[in-house]
Amino acid sequence: MTVRFGVLGAGRIGQVHAGAIASVDGAKLVAIADPLAAAAEAMQNKYGCDIRTIDEISASDDVDAVIICTPTDTHADLIEQFSRLGKAVFCEKPVDLSLTRVRDCLKTVEEENATLMVGFNRRFDPDFMAVKAAVDAGQVGTVEMVTITSRDPGAPPLDYIARSGGIFRDMTIHDFDIARWLLGEEVETVMASASVMTDPAIGEAGDFDSVNVLLRTASGKQAVITNSRRAAYGYDQRIEVLGSLGMVAARNHHEANIEIAGGAGFKKPPLLNFFMTRYTAAYANEIEAFVAAVSDGEETPTTGHDGMMALALADAAVKSVEEARAVKLTEILG
Amino acid sequence: MTVRFGVLGAGRIGQVHAGAIASVDGAKLVAIADPLAAAAEAMQNKYGCDIRTIDEISASDDVDAVIICTPTDTHADLIEQFSRLGKAVFCEKPVDLSLTRVRDCLKTVEEENATLMVGFNRRFDPDFMAVKAAVDAGQVGTVEMVTITSRDPGAPPLDYIARSGGIFRDMTIHDFDIARWLLGEEVETVMASASVMTDPAIGEAGDFDSVNVLLRTASGKQAVITNSRRAAYGYDQRIEVLGSLGMVAARNHHEANIEIAGGAGFKKPPLLNFFMTRYTAAYANEIEAFVAAVSDGEETPTTGHDGMMALALADAAVKSVEEARAVKLTEILG
Amino acid sequence: MTVRFGVLGAGRIGQVHAGAIASVDGAKLVAIADPLAAAAEAMQNKYGCDIRTIDEISASDDVDAVIICTPTDTHADLIEQFSRLGKAVFCEKPVDLSLTRVRDCLKTVEEENATLMVGFNRRFDPDFMAVKAAVDAGQVGTVEMVTITSRDPGAPPLDYIARSGGIFRDMTIHDFDIARWLLGEEVETVMASASVMTDPAIGEAGDFDSVNVLLRTASGKQAVITNSRRAAYGYDQRIEVLGSLGMVAARNHHEANIEIAGGAGFKKPPLLNFFMTRYTAAYANEIEAFVAAVSDGEETPTTGHDGMMALALADAAVKSVEEARAVKLTEILG
Amino acid sequence: MTVRFGVLGAGRIGQVHAGAIASVDGAKLVAIADPLAAAAEAMQNKYGCDIRTIDEISASDDVDAVIICTPTDTHADLIEQFSRLGKAVFCEKPVDLSLTRVRDCLKTVEEENATLMVGFNRRFDPDFMAVKAAVDAGQVGTVEMVTITSRDPGAPPLDYIARSGGIFRDMTIHDFDIARWLLGEEVETVMASASVMTDPAIGEAGDFDSVNVLLRTASGKQAVITNSRRAAYGYDQRIEVLGSLGMVAARNHHEANIEIAGGAGFKKPPLLNFFMTRYTAAYANEIEAFVAAVSDGEETPTTGHDGMMALALADAAVKSVEEARAVKLTEILG
Repeated sequence: MTVRFGVLGAGRIGQVHAGAIASVDGAKLVAIADPLAAAAEAMQNKYGCDIRTIDEISASDDVDAVIICTPTDTHADLIEQFSRLGKAVFCEKPVDLSLTRVRDCLKTVEEENATLMVGFNRRFDPDFMAVKAAVDAGQVGTVEMVTITSRDPGAPPLDYIARSGGIFRDMTIHDFDIARWLLGEEVETVMASASVMTDPAIGEAGDFDSVNVLLRTASGKQAVITNSRRAAYGYDQRIEVLGSLGMVAARNHHEANIEIAGGAGFKKPPLLNFFMTRYTAAYANEIEAFVAAVSDGEETPTTGHDGMMALALADAAVKSVEEARAVKLTEILG
Repeated sequence: MTVRFGVLGAGRIGQVHAGAIASVDGAKLVAIADPLAAAAEAMQNKYGCDIRTIDEISASDDVDAVIICTPTDTHADLIEQFSRLGKAVFCEKPVDLSLTRVRDCLKTVEEENATLMVGFNRRFDPDFMAVKAAVDAGQVGTVEMVTITSRDPGAPPLDYIARSGGIFRDMTIHDFDIARWLLGEEVETVMASASVMTDPAIGEAGDFDSVNVLLRTASGKQAVITNSRRAAYGYDQRIEVLGSLGMVAARNHHEANIEIAGGAGFKKPPLLNFFMTRYTAAYANEIEAFVAAVSDGEETPTTGHDGMMALALADAAVKSVEEARAVKLTEILG
Repeated sequence: MTVRFGVLGAGRIGQVHAGAIASVDGAKLVAIADPLAAAAEAMQNKYGCDIRTIDEISASDDVDAVIICTPTDTHADLIEQFSRLGKAVFCEKPVDLSLTRVRDCLKTVEEENATLMVGFNRRFDPDFMAVKAAVDAGQVGTVEMVTITSRDPGAPPLDYIARSGGIFRDMTIHDFDIARWLLGEEVETVMASASVMTDPAIGEAGDFDSVNVLLRTASGKQAVITNSRRAAYGYDQRIEVLGSLGMVAARNHHEANIEIAGGAGFKKPPLLNFFMTRYTAAYANEIEAFVAAVSDGEETPTTGHDGMMALALADAAVKSVEEARAVKLTEILG
Repeated sequence: MTVRFGVLGAGRIGQVHAGAIASVDGAKLVAIADPLAAAAEAMQNKYGCDIRTIDEISASDDVDAVIICTPTDTHADLIEQFSRLGKAVFCEKPVDLSLTRVRDCLKTVEEENATLMVGFNRRFDPDFMAVKAAVDAGQVGTVEMVTITSRDPGAPPLDYIARSGGIFRDMTIHDFDIARWLLGEEVETVMASASVMTDPAIGEAGDFDSVNVLLRTASGKQAVITNSRRAAYGYDQRIEVLGSLGMVAARNHHEANIEIAGGAGFKKPPLLNFFMTRYTAAYANEIEAFVAAVSDGEETPTTGHDGMMALALADAAVKSVEEARAVKLTEILG
């Protein structure tokens, strides 16, 4: 079976997914939708796909699945629209910035028995998959502590920050998902600490740029997440899992695997500086996994529930900072 | 000038300090005191020093300075006793497990205008000194976040745990000191999370074995401390400082600097497994710095105040876990 | 301008090049030729190209360039055939195993003023390119010594070895090319040492599996090449350049960038085990560079001359082993 | 039993050995001899030993063993003198620069049934010992190829070079010993290549500064030695052993185990820059091994024969460069 795709949004991430579709066996890009004609046409030229409106894609019999790469505030509506039409949906995170809206949306997905995969690309990074495989194989014994260091090379534009939902919902959300995935249990309490260190304008926009989060499960497993919007040395993406038998860690990726030695010491290039370069393989693996799940009629490896849980952890972190206390996830989820 | 030493306590750490005295120019071991004759005699044989009682050392004109390596509950009394006699004092951490007692003791030290150095050996580790030097030289710009990973190879005996004051006052106290040193500002708030993961008996003794702490200064600088009583791969001691211009990190020490590659991959030996082996150079540097300060009549690089502040952070961490909230240091220090 | 390609040979390496053509802007795969119908059809299905015979491709007006991936003994004839037709030629190394035949072939290429690029893929590896860029930028000063470690995971089949021309012409030839590229001068003398260590059958086939070569230029620059047909830990590919100001080195690539620590130590996965996986990016960059050169009418980054010189170094190494002495390249080239 | 030492020569290396004696249980420094009164007195002050002439030490009943740290051209005479007196001898390499003289000297040692250890300190480096232990334990299977990279931070003074016997006898001699040790078989043929790259004055003094050597045993095992008198990044000391089951490698030692990351990349400190700092532990282990052998009446771990064989390899390398051919060790040893 070939999964025939419509991609909604021909922006940066839409292009990445279109490229992934082209490279995955059993997937075909049928149509692209974007209000910007130039963006859509570039995709058409590259992949030979049709240009259609979102509503035309809704009505297309030759489209089995859509990838939603439109602005965040349209995600939930589009998920509902396509779920009702029986089309499989891959949606970039987050489903919505409001937990209530997310829940309503997921209820629709459930009622329609629809397929929804939320794009947590990092789970599909080859190194992180190797970490997870080692954990699942028992190579570190019982998981005790997960440590996630995630630092962007630089902050996004201020107007993006203003509508991002804040650093916990925009950036840490990836780490919340990785933490849940590696802890293998749901988090019970959240403690968070936050500062503005890199740019006062971020604070004026009501957000933070430097945050740390402690997660704890009922059985006592803990996770530590360290975020900054700025790392002068590149895109810092590390995870560690400590268990009863040892530790497994994923290391950073440098621009090149070389070292230059001189009188001043040994120098390695900075880290890959851009999330799309760092996670190229992850984006391709992610779509491949979606295609495989849709083809086989199986559950997708990440779900709407995963999207909701990561958002709930973000909401708890926000509350923890505001109230300077540990927040129970049940306070958020009810 | 030669600083003439009496060492109080001929146990493991007393032996380390006696060895350091022997290797430092301008220092001489005059007398050892220990209730166990065998321990004292071993020192006498090795270093040719006298065996005296603590009170005899008190009364000795040929002793300029003492190193207190006796059980914790004697530290404060001995500091006071020797301070009043005008002898310089080097005391193993902690001064006392009670902040009130520490304060009283330090008051005496101050009144006597005495010299008191508290043994935070890690500040004298060559790698950590290189990290601090890089920070002080501005190589990472303004400090934003300090990350300390400190894991013991295995838990101490349960009876030690029972009288240790708990993991925060016994183990994390080193990391609190390193955090203060690297942040370059006093901590304002403390959040901590704690579990028992390695051995239920530790929990039954009223302690934890797996803890994480978030520290935040008034200006927004943060530190994250991650501790475990058990790391199967050895004594894990890492620090990182993120600043506006980059990051500096100290790496772990392996048993040997070799790598063995085969069909199953590349293997490096475990980490040095014992704090005295890992911090051999630090212990020697520490005594050298004490000798230099005493000789020159200058302030010691670590002080009773440092000891008190680290203990206050430990008390705040304990309270944070108990009350599941951020604790201000002013709540502890008044 | 779009360069329209015919690929001669649909085997393993032909497939790699076809994939590269598909991913490079300005390149189009028009036709594939292979005596095995199934191989050619697989390419047709994947890329939508025509299936033609080599002679049909010769006669095709819609083919601007060919990639020769046929058996070695056909290379020189095909280079001549397509050069005479004015088509640009990319040929896998070697042009021929006989230096005389190579010279005749290159004479034809020159007379026809044809474009010929010989496939030394390693020059296009991103890490090796970064090494070369550092050298060219003067970051290590004047080059003094080049060290190349190149070990295969395992030997090829014995029948391949029998017709390979021997390890120096088949395997070391890549390292000879890299050495010339990094030395920046022609080699004057060659010394080589060779053994059979991994499989006596290799010796019975008249070849070696473990060789070392010393190269020296007229100005005294040296290169050391170390080869083995077997490295249990994967495909070992390292280069180092020592210069007056320091050293630049390219490191190996592991299967994943993770580390697993336990009681037995720290373990990293083996190296990537297959040349096509290790040099994926190099193969794509190589075709991109060929396309760029053909489009712009400029000289290709590797040429027939490079192919000839690497082969001459191999011949000198063979002679050095046979005669247990340093061999001057002029003895080989006349 | 305590081994009572006389040290002949209070220069740099004499001081290192005196320090080692002081730290080793079962060893005692009794007397120091040096024509420079100041040098001898410094040792007396530090260790409380006597100052005696070499002949007085010869005649001393309270001296069991001597360490010869005098100029090279006195080594053989002193070895003979003390061997005849029944004192155990530890002599810095080389025994002599003339192979004939070495042989005569060793004959005397043998006739006297004396104990002679030649100082090849690197065999006692903890990392190299770990490499050797891994090889001996079969962790890499059958040894196939040894690779030794040994580069000094900078050349010694020209007057030292003039009387050093040349780079092969002065510097490479250490690597010849390590190669023999790790190959586990005697070398049959030697090929060498040599240049002057760092300073023309070295060439004018009749020496080289950049050399490579290929060694081959009768069974086909090979070793590659790469030397330079100048490495801008510090004292480069690496060894690798490739075997049928994998590889074991010893890595370099940096000044500190830290990394500083910024916009320009990741920077580690240069390598330890001085052989006494790099091999501190090796020098102590070496004397400990000598003391143990003398105490137990066992053979020393390195012998006069080892000294002779390393010198013979150096002579062969010299001849190989002169005659541009592979030289058999039998040509040197007869």
